[in-house]
Parts: sequence; C-alpha cells; structure tokens
Amino acid sequence: MTNHLHFRLLGISAKQILVIALLAMLAVPCMAQRNEEASAASNGIFPKGKLGPSDNFTGKAWNYGLVAADSTLTTVLGNVYFEPGARSHWHTHPAGQILVITDGSGYHQIKGQPRKTLKKGDVVTCPPDVLHWHGAGPQTGMQQLYIVPNTEKGIVKWMQAVTDEEYNNPK
Amino acid sequence: MTNHLHFRLLGISAKQILVIALLAMLAVPCMAQRNEEASAASNGIFPKGKLGPSDNFTGKAWNYGLVAADSTLTTVLGNVYFEPGARSHWHTHPAGQILVITDGSGYHQIKGQPRKTLKKGDVVTCPPDVLHWHGAGPQTGMQQLYIVPNTEKGIVKWMQAVTDEEYNNPK
Repeated sequence: MTNHLHFRLLGISAKQILVIALLAMLAVPCMAQRNEEASAASNGIFPKGKLGPSDNFTGKAWNYGLVAADSTLTTVLGNVYFEPGARSHWHTHPAGQILVITDGSGYHQIKGQPRKTLKKGDVVTCPPDVLHWHGAGPQTGMQQLYIVPNTEKGIVKWMQAVTDEEYNNPK
Repeated sequence: MTNHLHFRLLGISAKQILVIALLAMLAVPCMAQRNEEASAASNGIFPKGKLGPSDNFTGKAWNYGLVAADSTLTTVLGNVYFEPGARSHWHTHPAGQILVITDGSGYHQIKGQPRKTLKKGDVVTCPPDVLHWHGAGPQTGMQQLYIVPNTEKGIVKWMQAVTDEEYNNPK
C-alpha cells in the first residue's frame, strides 16, 4: 500500500487525494438527499394516486384514497396533491368536510366569503351543503388530507368550474 | 493574491487547500440539513401541543387538538407526537378511530391480534368498542393524526396501561 501513496495526480499527492475523496463522500449524499426532497415536495407522505377528472378539477389534482365509505366509520379519508394552479370545481358536501394541509400552500374559499390562504399545518372546515372550492396557489403545490364525515348523508355534489377570475380574486 | 497561493500547510499547497475547502463547503450544509431533519422528526407538521396525562399514556405523548367535537361534523381530529418508547394505555372508542401516520414509526395493536408496525404514510382503522393501543417504536418517534368519527356516541374510554411485556411482544 505504501508504494501507492507515492503517485501524484495533477500535482496532488495520493495522501491529499484521500482527504479530498473523504470530503467528496460527505458532499455527494448531500446532493442526492436534496433531489429526494425536491421529489418529496410533489409526493409528500402518500403516493400521488390517480389524476382527478377534468369534470371536477381545473389543472392536475392527484387523488389517493385512504379510507373508503362504509357503514361503521361513515368517514371518507384521502389525500389530494394539487399541482401549482390546480383547484377543484365548486362543490358541496352533504355533511361537511375537514381539510388538513400537510405540505405546500394554496387556497380555500367558501362562497360569499374571502379566499383563505392555506399552508402546511392549517386545518379548515366547511359546513354541510355549503359551496366551496380548494386548490394550490398559482406557484405552489398543495398536499391536503380530506375528511368527509357522516357519509350516510352523501359525499360530494360537484358544480361549475372555478374561473380564473374567481381563482385570482382574494375577496 | 498570487503570493498567497505559495504558502503550504501540512505539506498541502494553497491551491489544494482551496479544492478541499470547496468540497468542505458542500459537506457542511449537508450535516446542518441532517440536524434540521432530526428536529423535524420531533415536531412534524403541527406544534407539539400538550403533554398527555400519565393516567392515559406511558412516556411522553404530546397532543395537539385540531378539530373539537361539535354537533355538525361530529368528528374529533388531532395530532399526537409519541416520543420513542411512549404509548397510549389500552382504550376503546365507541364509534371507532382512524389513525394516519405522518412521520416516524411505531405500533398499533388491537387486543387479541398481533402488534402491527406503522410507518409514515400508513393508515389504520379500529372498529367501535374494540380495545387497542398505539405508540412510538422503542427507538423512533411517531407522529399520528387521529380521527374519531360520530362523536355523539362518545370519544374514548381509557383502560389499563400497556405493560413493557405487552409493548415488546410482536404477537
């Protein structure tokens, strides 16, 4: 081994190359980790799931079901990842809804009320039979868990699309 | 500046020190980022909240309420951060429960069934009036959202502590 330490590369000794290699080994996983995080921002805690139909969504909204409606828990749970600019159409829930923002940021608006900005950690509720929409910000994705309680009353009634004017109006 | 490049430190030229420093600059933020992640694992999406009472929990379990019981949504939502080794006592929910693991890993056990290992992204349900417990792994924290539906039937009935023997037995 000692002989190997005598060779030189670009005027740098083998010993010095070893030091550089050691530091490079610390740096490379760091870069790999950053890429992983960039990908997590569009995937979050759950798999991306299925693309929501254009009948109910503007832009790309990915739905991943977690708990289906049944007669015991009577609660539907799932995750939606809204890509930047994507949002639901206006809709109502016969028994209301709870939204939990787990990453990114976006909007929630109840008809007749100002548009609310939502970010990671925010929780909002919507009362039964009240028209609302939710989605990502124009430049930011949003990960949200949705909880629909008392599904024996129904789950969702879809209405018209949220126009660009409505989407961009904070009031 | 050129003159400065002629000095040598421990047999390494200034030029070579510059290369090493550059690599070190890549490596150091990497380590800082890792520390940040370790801290995120104990804080997650929500504030830590209040320490759960020792009457209902073994070890440190932090509860942060998100949606309180009401007569409209009839759903309680909150977050618990279990520190490593912490777990709930045995308990039942009159209308069942949904758990969503948002970070870390731990356990869920329904009385008479094997202990299940849970990790980030897992969702488990517990039927009404069934005895269960949940908590962190011995070496890992766990962040969980809990959803208690149909709160008009009641929320939780606390029972005896989970012994170390029960906690450590996978069957």
